[in-house]
Amino acid sequence: MKSLGRHLLVDYYGCGSSLLNDPVMLEKHLKIAVSKAGATIVSSTFRTFEPYGVSGIIIIAESHFAIHTWPEYNFASIDFFTCGDSVDPRKANEYIEKVLLPERYDIREIGRGNFSNMNITKCAI
Amino acid sequence: MKSLGRHLLVDYYGCGSSLLNDPVMLEKHLKIAVSKAGATIVSSTFRTFEPYGVSGIIIIAESHFAIHTWPEYNFASIDFFTCGDSVDPRKANEYIEKVLLPERYDIREIGRGNFSNMNITKCAI
Repeated sequence: MKSLGRHLLVDYYGCGSSLLNDPVMLEKHLKIAVSKAGATIVSSTFRTFEPYGVSGIIIIAESHFAIHTWPEYNFASIDFFTCGDSVDPRKANEYIEKVLLPERYDIREIGRGNFSNMNITKCAI
Repeated sequence: MKSLGRHLLVDYYGCGSSLLNDPVMLEKHLKIAVSKAGATIVSSTFRTFEPYGVSGIIIIAESHFAIHTWPEYNFASIDFFTCGDSVDPRKANEYIEKVLLPERYDIREIGRGNFSNMNITKCAI
């Protein structure tokens, strides 16, 4: 069984970074994370919420990265969803860990689109 | 242990719908799914890819919905990520199932941001 996509769901607890309420810096770093993964940016949207918190999405040619932050819990969740063999979402997580400086993080990798017979090198989107 | 967010990852196989390469209709239906969940749209971005496939993201006040389609596999993956007690991402999936008409779908629900002591009715973003 092979998967069309690799989806990393990472929850960062006890973030030591002061960036969790800074959409400009979070967008900058998540875009760097895209490049670390070897992926290609298509579009990017970041928003702040009152009284605090940021949501940001980057559509990439290989699926998407998404971040949501809860500064009041020193917490951030990020999705690194990629398809194709030429990218590695784990590289993106390695970079973001150094930016957010969490006390710990939980990482789960889930295959999306599992087929017994397909060309996994193909990235349709 | 309680979670800040509910994240449904749904993979739809054997979609009978002809919509998988139609960004306008997919955006329309995913926006309806947002309302079915009781959530609030903040922004929306949909893109088509060559030769086929659509990626779409809706940032909602309660996190995000995201869709990626592979028409050549009759396959779509959707994330329904919400926070707060006033929304129900399962309602969004019930609606989308009727739109995409899959032969089957795999649904996984993952708690994001698990804390032993917090006010789960709070939705910070």
